[in-house]
Amino acid sequence: MQRLRVGILGAAGYTGGELVRLIHRHPRLDLTYVAARERAGQRLEQALPSTFGIPGLGELVLEPFDAARADEVAKRCDVVFTALPHARSAEAGKALLDAGVRVVDLSADFRLRDPAVYEAWYGAHPAKELRREAVYGLPEIHRERLRDVRLIAAPGCYPTSAILALAPLLRGGLVGVDGIVIDSKSGVSGAGRTPSPSTHFPETGEGLRPYKVAGTHRHTPEIEQELSLVAQGEVRVIFTPHLVPMSRGILTTAYARAKEGVTAGDCREAAREMYRQGLVTVLDDDRLPDTLFVRGSARAHVAYAFDARTGTVLAMSAIDNLARGSSAQAIQALNVAMGWPDAEGLPEVALFP
Amino acid sequence: MQRLRVGILGAAGYTGGELVRLIHRHPRLDLTYVAARERAGQRLEQALPSTFGIPGLGELVLEPFDAARADEVAKRCDVVFTALPHARSAEAGKALLDAGVRVVDLSADFRLRDPAVYEAWYGAHPAKELRREAVYGLPEIHRERLRDVRLIAAPGCYPTSAILALAPLLRGGLVGVDGIVIDSKSGVSGAGRTPSPSTHFPETGEGLRPYKVAGTHRHTPEIEQELSLVAQGEVRVIFTPHLVPMSRGILTTAYARAKEGVTAGDCREAAREMYRQGLVTVLDDDRLPDTLFVRGSARAHVAYAFDARTGTVLAMSAIDNLARGSSAQAIQALNVAMGWPDAEGLPEVALFP
Amino acid sequence: MQRLRVGILGAAGYTGGELVRLIHRHPRLDLTYVAARERAGQRLEQALPSTFGIPGLGELVLEPFDAARADEVAKRCDVVFTALPHARSAEAGKALLDAGVRVVDLSADFRLRDPAVYEAWYGAHPAKELRREAVYGLPEIHRERLRDVRLIAAPGCYPTSAILALAPLLRGGLVGVDGIVIDSKSGVSGAGRTPSPSTHFPETGEGLRPYKVAGTHRHTPEIEQELSLVAQGEVRVIFTPHLVPMSRGILTTAYARAKEGVTAGDCREAAREMYRQGLVTVLDDDRLPDTLFVRGSARAHVAYAFDARTGTVLAMSAIDNLARGSSAQAIQALNVAMGWPDAEGLPEVALFP
Amino acid sequence: MQRLRVGILGAAGYTGGELVRLIHRHPRLDLTYVAARERAGQRLEQALPSTFGIPGLGELVLEPFDAARADEVAKRCDVVFTALPHARSAEAGKALLDAGVRVVDLSADFRLRDPAVYEAWYGAHPAKELRREAVYGLPEIHRERLRDVRLIAAPGCYPTSAILALAPLLRGGLVGVDGIVIDSKSGVSGAGRTPSPSTHFPETGEGLRPYKVAGTHRHTPEIEQELSLVAQGEVRVIFTPHLVPMSRGILTTAYARAKEGVTAGDCREAAREMYRQGLVTVLDDDRLPDTLFVRGSARAHVAYAFDARTGTVLAMSAIDNLARGSSAQAIQALNVAMGWPDAEGLPEVALFP
Repeated sequence: MQRLRVGILGAAGYTGGELVRLIHRHPRLDLTYVAARERAGQRLEQALPSTFGIPGLGELVLEPFDAARADEVAKRCDVVFTALPHARSAEAGKALLDAGVRVVDLSADFRLRDPAVYEAWYGAHPAKELRREAVYGLPEIHRERLRDVRLIAAPGCYPTSAILALAPLLRGGLVGVDGIVIDSKSGVSGAGRTPSPSTHFPETGEGLRPYKVAGTHRHTPEIEQELSLVAQGEVRVIFTPHLVPMSRGILTTAYARAKEGVTAGDCREAAREMYRQGLVTVLDDDRLPDTLFVRGSARAHVAYAFDARTGTVLAMSAIDNLARGSSAQAIQALNVAMGWPDAEGLPEVALFP
Repeated sequence: MQRLRVGILGAAGYTGGELVRLIHRHPRLDLTYVAARERAGQRLEQALPSTFGIPGLGELVLEPFDAARADEVAKRCDVVFTALPHARSAEAGKALLDAGVRVVDLSADFRLRDPAVYEAWYGAHPAKELRREAVYGLPEIHRERLRDVRLIAAPGCYPTSAILALAPLLRGGLVGVDGIVIDSKSGVSGAGRTPSPSTHFPETGEGLRPYKVAGTHRHTPEIEQELSLVAQGEVRVIFTPHLVPMSRGILTTAYARAKEGVTAGDCREAAREMYRQGLVTVLDDDRLPDTLFVRGSARAHVAYAFDARTGTVLAMSAIDNLARGSSAQAIQALNVAMGWPDAEGLPEVALFP
Repeated sequence: MQRLRVGILGAAGYTGGELVRLIHRHPRLDLTYVAARERAGQRLEQALPSTFGIPGLGELVLEPFDAARADEVAKRCDVVFTALPHARSAEAGKALLDAGVRVVDLSADFRLRDPAVYEAWYGAHPAKELRREAVYGLPEIHRERLRDVRLIAAPGCYPTSAILALAPLLRGGLVGVDGIVIDSKSGVSGAGRTPSPSTHFPETGEGLRPYKVAGTHRHTPEIEQELSLVAQGEVRVIFTPHLVPMSRGILTTAYARAKEGVTAGDCREAAREMYRQGLVTVLDDDRLPDTLFVRGSARAHVAYAFDARTGTVLAMSAIDNLARGSSAQAIQALNVAMGWPDAEGLPEVALFP
Repeated sequence: MQRLRVGILGAAGYTGGELVRLIHRHPRLDLTYVAARERAGQRLEQALPSTFGIPGLGELVLEPFDAARADEVAKRCDVVFTALPHARSAEAGKALLDAGVRVVDLSADFRLRDPAVYEAWYGAHPAKELRREAVYGLPEIHRERLRDVRLIAAPGCYPTSAILALAPLLRGGLVGVDGIVIDSKSGVSGAGRTPSPSTHFPETGEGLRPYKVAGTHRHTPEIEQELSLVAQGEVRVIFTPHLVPMSRGILTTAYARAKEGVTAGDCREAAREMYRQGLVTVLDDDRLPDTLFVRGSARAHVAYAFDARTGTVLAMSAIDNLARGSSAQAIQALNVAMGWPDAEGLPEVALFP
């Protein structure tokens, strides 16, 4: 059985921690290197108490990553997951690629194809030349291009939820490309591990709020890029993220104008066709998605309904933002790149309740 | 100081319990009669442990209400709040009105003006003749008609949140009447006090889901009735309710097409104009609503944003579904009917955190 | 009707914000001065969004407090609540007392009678001479001493929950003074408004943990001081605080050795006797306390059970840590100091659910 | 690699659903039979939406179990997990054992050795003769006896948490056997999947309460049985369960009188010695347990502290009630019975956050 030695940069954050959880049970991946900046020198279990006392894991020591010495990491790793803030992630990824390591990047750095768009939202890019080479790591859309790729750009959590719900409709021309409303609701882990007033428990528990409304959230261009691709035409969306008092999960409710005669059944059929391979479940017409049913799972759930009174299709999805929305999808993309089954080593049954 | 003796039918439910909380501190209302069907004979504190040991309150005994003996209730009450399931509520209300008692009905029975619409959604109506007399108890819209009215139809929780956000825009012609999307998110108390699988803690905590999508929720016609009224033309909406893992609160995010040249500032101005009187706060442009900031309060918060890329106005609101969305608004409407200030005896500062 | 003009130092914190909520509805208290250090210059509604748009309240401006100019505050206030970190609170309180203002201090500064104990737990005290004058603001124990007092030391939240549960048993000699175990569970607002890793939503939601165990929590000496007082002998306790994924509330489960022949009924009777006056409800024997039933309320609930197999009495209590455990109790103590009823202007019915 | 064909009785409940999650990723266990009473005839994914669309799993059909036809089940299964209400579970287990199937019972039926104790707490036992044969499935205590056993009695969730914390202390004689206080706090999934008023979200969220206090909870005799066994003498405990607003997890804080000279270090050393094998992590002295760090994991965390002022040892533990407290521990016991490693096929890294 082919195996890979794996490293993680940013192992003390939430997506890094989720990678640790998933890799530990993946039969083909061996965790050999964990890096973190502020917590360098600590044992992994000090940074991630979820690994307390686990033989061979908790006692791993977090190392500082130095791009200048990427060669040394290359001796210990076949693939490295880079889960760092944008720009820093691209810098690290470039050094590792140059040293011959395969890279799966979980930041936004390699997701956007248009340099101008990247710069407008994120600023200067430290490794522009690599963007062409990177493949957007959503296997249900880019399966063929992912095979044997060196650099995978793991999608953002909101884009994953929105794209999986809407792509079958736009690919099949079942809905119009204008006036699409994407109303997404996320658990708080999406905000990362750094405390802030807006994620302080007493100001989040029992509270619910929109934020970065009216086209100001950075995931907007990523959603539009991928939907435009499948629609083979420019798609404009209005995207509204909300913060919900739960730790994990994104629920997206999207609204699009149905083309004449389109039914919810047509939408489900298009989705079943598109998702024959991969890790997306199309729910039956008596079921609606719930983040509770995908918690900890690599699977996404999508569902469709049609509002005849207004001619609107509802496209809904539920994912675990850290699993399917980030780390599990990154591993799924790596699985596909390696020619392994999508689900190889990944949890599919959700932690319920 | 003018005072009223008050009764509550359905005092053991959530809206009934909220009425108890609010009336207990209202300087002009004296609770003299509490009724409940299944818990008749119990002390109020057995049904509502939130009243344990409170002198003069906890020891009140829940009585069975008998419409045939409404006269006796009329001797003890000037006004009765009926918080019963639909149809039963109208029956009780009719008997009380006939006995000379003022009625504030918290069910759906007197909200819909068109008998055919009521019947399509709820079935036969037991007191059709009263519907004309009833006034929809949203003081910011029906202030004049509420003065001295005998029968108040307290609005539903979702309609309150949707109408307060959108009414200023439709009244002012700032947005189109077609294609309005209303995406609402509610705490679980909106489902009432009866346990069910979908409100069982382990299947609600950490979960998030839409329900009754695509025009199947009963609050849809109520929203359209009132918005059409202020728009002076037929308004069609697509309304999607969601269940969120928190006890109280509704956040509504609504999307409407802006008329040419309309800005978020115009929307705020229209709302400030409309809400000069009443209990609605229009948030400044650097603020977004959060249910946490209205918990337990009679106030609603509304906010507006404009997405220039798609020409869409976002109208957002936050309310406490049991307070402003139900019981506090019912008392506000009674205050207005009596000629008292809207806020008389009502909490405005939210329980925070 | 006698009225007082009231100021709050630390109005932007949780206990300060709770004071704002309570004072706003108190018929004898008028809020005339609000101070905060970091947020000085902001409107109150910017610091406390729970006051957004409330006429006469939200637009109050937070002022910086300067002890050297306490005279000016004295012209505008009859009483000031000081809700600052320890030491700073005492300094401010001293300046205000010297300027002739009555002070209710919500910090730990005036709670401990023994200077050596204060210093061991908190360090040097900036106003030692005032400690003799201060009265511990638990009206059910110190009612007589509170009358007309100038300086009230509002109790800590954990001590309130523990003392109210155990005091009747120790006063009546129903349990032994040794080996008392106090296992307390608190909502997260008790940790204050400053974000930290341990109060970051994703690391608090769905988590439960003890902290500062084995006699290391600063509330231990305060509990022992007051229990020793009512027991008229030295009481030693082992106190364990826990953090629970909810915003408000403290539940305390205390264990004490019953004296020969003592029953749960004896305990309830002793508590009913002790709490004839005040804001403590002794639950009947078929009821157990729940923080949900006291949320937002000035009332405490206590209950008792007897474990015959081990000869142990369970003394249990539920309070809202910010209301009865802090700000509402502070106002209750002021009410008693002024000769008003304990419940004057305070909410007794809990926000339920 | 040796593999077993596995059946589950009660697959639609929470412990049954957790078995499904765990078995699906166990490399030696193949799920071949799922039974449920009320949901018989449904697909597994209808009962457990966490399995929606998972190939080979979601489409399994729930069958009705008929003890009279246990032979047919025996043809399809090498081992069956019985997760039924007590008495019914023993009946089913007996029929399966008679048919030659190995049984792991998750009910209380085979946990208590003393028939009189069982009958006092649960009523008549339908298969008394089997109780001698059953081995209590806590591998860290009964490892040798579990080898090759036919009938495993999987421990209760509270007992697991209490026993793992206290057993090393009692085995080593570090604490007295009298006056042990066990204060446990559980997530709501421990109450099972059937809705009830006490588990209705709005009456559980933001609430915290004790229940079945003063020796009335059925787990009391189970705790005492096992602790007496390791102590080689009769142990009496006072056990208080609490319900906490979270879905999973039990935190236990236990208090015992330290023998002269015993330190927290001695306790940790005794625990490390006892837990050299198995799935219990003894936390270092700067760490305290948190249910968040064991969610979804087969591991338990234990920690110790010493309160010198009162001579009390605190023994604390955190487990996931459905994983280590039930289904994962049942599989761990089966692993040991089969001679496989304890952790074979089980998740150790917690789902964090």
